[in-house]
Amino acid sequence: MNAEIISVGTEIVLGQIVNTNAPFLARQLATLGITADRQLAIPDQRDLMVEAIRSAWQRSSLVFVCGGLGPTADDVTLAAVAAALGTDLTVDQDHWQWIKGTFKQRHKVMMPENIQQAKYLTGGTPLVNAVGLALGSWYERDGHRLVVLPGPPREFKPMVTREVMPRLAKVIGQHTQITSRTLNFFGRPESELMDEVATVTADLTGVTITSYVQPDAIQVRMTVRNQAQAEANRLLDTAQAAIVAKEAPFFFGVGDDCRLVNVVVDLLRQRGLRVTAAESLTGGMFQSTICSVPGASNVFDGGLVTYAATAKEHLLGIAPEVIEKNGVVSAATAAQMAEKSREKLNVAIGLGFTGVAGPDSLEGQPAGTVWIGLAIEGQPTQTKLCHLGAYRGRQAVRRQSVQAGLQMLYQALIK
Amino acid sequence: MNAEIISVGTEIVLGQIVNTNAPFLARQLATLGITADRQLAIPDQRDLMVEAIRSAWQRSSLVFVCGGLGPTADDVTLAAVAAALGTDLTVDQDHWQWIKGTFKQRHKVMMPENIQQAKYLTGGTPLVNAVGLALGSWYERDGHRLVVLPGPPREFKPMVTREVMPRLAKVIGQHTQITSRTLNFFGRPESELMDEVATVTADLTGVTITSYVQPDAIQVRMTVRNQAQAEANRLLDTAQAAIVAKEAPFFFGVGDDCRLVNVVVDLLRQRGLRVTAAESLTGGMFQSTICSVPGASNVFDGGLVTYAATAKEHLLGIAPEVIEKNGVVSAATAAQMAEKSREKLNVAIGLGFTGVAGPDSLEGQPAGTVWIGLAIEGQPTQTKLCHLGAYRGRQAVRRQSVQAGLQMLYQALIK
Repeated sequence: MNAEIISVGTEIVLGQIVNTNAPFLARQLATLGITADRQLAIPDQRDLMVEAIRSAWQRSSLVFVCGGLGPTADDVTLAAVAAALGTDLTVDQDHWQWIKGTFKQRHKVMMPENIQQAKYLTGGTPLVNAVGLALGSWYERDGHRLVVLPGPPREFKPMVTREVMPRLAKVIGQHTQITSRTLNFFGRPESELMDEVATVTADLTGVTITSYVQPDAIQVRMTVRNQAQAEANRLLDTAQAAIVAKEAPFFFGVGDDCRLVNVVVDLLRQRGLRVTAAESLTGGMFQSTICSVPGASNVFDGGLVTYAATAKEHLLGIAPEVIEKNGVVSAATAAQMAEKSREKLNVAIGLGFTGVAGPDSLEGQPAGTVWIGLAIEGQPTQTKLCHLGAYRGRQAVRRQSVQAGLQMLYQALIK
Repeated sequence: MNAEIISVGTEIVLGQIVNTNAPFLARQLATLGITADRQLAIPDQRDLMVEAIRSAWQRSSLVFVCGGLGPTADDVTLAAVAAALGTDLTVDQDHWQWIKGTFKQRHKVMMPENIQQAKYLTGGTPLVNAVGLALGSWYERDGHRLVVLPGPPREFKPMVTREVMPRLAKVIGQHTQITSRTLNFFGRPESELMDEVATVTADLTGVTITSYVQPDAIQVRMTVRNQAQAEANRLLDTAQAAIVAKEAPFFFGVGDDCRLVNVVVDLLRQRGLRVTAAESLTGGMFQSTICSVPGASNVFDGGLVTYAATAKEHLLGIAPEVIEKNGVVSAATAAQMAEKSREKLNVAIGLGFTGVAGPDSLEGQPAGTVWIGLAIEGQPTQTKLCHLGAYRGRQAVRRQSVQAGLQMLYQALIK
């Protein structure tokens, strides 16, 4: 099956944004053995779009058209696709009612143009947008398929994984059986991890292993082709056991959408434990990350942001001598932050984050130096020193600190 | 002058790397008024490449072919370009001597294939590679131009800026002068904003206005072409004044990289004010956002995360009756959170965030309902009710709450 991706957007073509949708879609297609070997970006210009879509439709059996589904005058994708294919547009009345209701709930004025976002290709199928207004479209004719997808990545990605991939898997179904599983790791450079993965799986035939670096994880994807389900699962189980045995300190879960914080919140809930934190360089990001999980209230009441030394003293009650003697960025301060926050909130677990986010150094310690404390009721307080890649910037140091804290907590919980 | 960019690389087409070369080149071209309105990515396959290059050469007066200049067998770009144009390749003898010398000096073994990297299109001009081995090529015929560039971004970018741009500027001759300026807004749907922008700038000729939705802003970009700098600035000033006069409550700054939080932290610093917060649904995200700005310690000491009602009572000292009588998600609770956090941290400004992040409703209020309190020393406490788009998900509601709080603070600071 030959595929093409057409990305529509003047801001892409002018270089104002980098097109991350096409590579995301390409990686998804690769899991089904499909390569999109022509990937075109064009501006929101109807004539250009019609010509590009028409050529792609003639040439390829699978065409994706991405972006330009907004309600404004320069969003002309649907009209261009309809013109290129010689079809029309249909309003999904249920979705149109939902859009109107959404505007009402938000007390926002709806424009008549918003009806554009309830349209799909006549003769095709609307695709659900989990997080935005505009529908996608799935259209088939004469053995060719065309898929219309929204431009914003947070709308695009779920529509690809939830709406497009299952349909494509069915289409491919007759040809290739693909079984895959994703393992998630944190805290190890990709090259080191993959070298060891290659070594421990060297004797395994029939499993293809690829890696992909996510912001908060390295994902290792194992794929088996053309095997019955039971045999495919057996192969994946064997590979997973070999890899996890070697990389246990860095492994945290299975699945494309697996996030370390969700795993940690689940474990806390199962064990009936509550967590808090006192945060310096992370400035609330650890607690905010915990609160990103629906149902966080089962494991989290609140906590403290103690950015300045004075806040560490006044809000937490850390003795000024501790900070004076050891420095703000120290094991002693991190341990005290963890312990005092735990006492203050009267919960089982407290974490303390103190370090140098950068760009400047602090107390003679370079940016990227971070101490994390972990106080668990009835256990000795642990501390951990991290040297994070400050060249990646202040935000990356803070974000990695949060993930390192979650990892420390995860390791303690599974013991 | 119509331009096209062809990016060559199997790893791009498989989504293993994101193509940042094309947007970089597009931004450079935009400064000369050139839009590359077809940007194609294809794998290192000779037949596909020859066809794509031939079509582009016929269609456009300027074609860029990027990537695939290495010495290995799958680097076939130069051969494909030569075949498509019906020309040949010439060895640059000086450069070939330099490559041989470089390998000798680095004590590396050279392969015979490295001679590929000293070749350029016969009849064209070699382009110097400041940081790598492979030459680029500049080729002109019958009013058409084709430029061959290396794939690695650290070789690509300097070749574009040092070798390509000066030659293009000459071609453009009395070249197009482009002046542009970006205005940033928050808190208004793009369609409403752009409708009003279109209305207030309807009488202005010579200014092109486009919009782009960023995660935390809507950017409105105003562009003037072919005007002397003074006149261009006058036109942009007039447009900006008209737009900002109409959209003042949503405007927060000028510039592509302008972020609301940086503007707010700068204003606080200039006025010698410190800020804190008590956060419920945002769970620390407001404070973490403040801490994302280098030098946040000038305006921020710390604060509180009061997710559960008990934390609001115990950490902040809000009377249980206030919450019982008004509800957790209420103006009264938001106001108390703002005031008590300000008192607790002994600073000039406190914010309180309480609301329903979702997915479930709370106290009968739907997800997306958020109250924000703002307490400023010596002023009556303000509260604001937001109805945020819960269909975008829990994280988006929390993130928009933070931006709404920053906007409220910004408006108070500029009064």
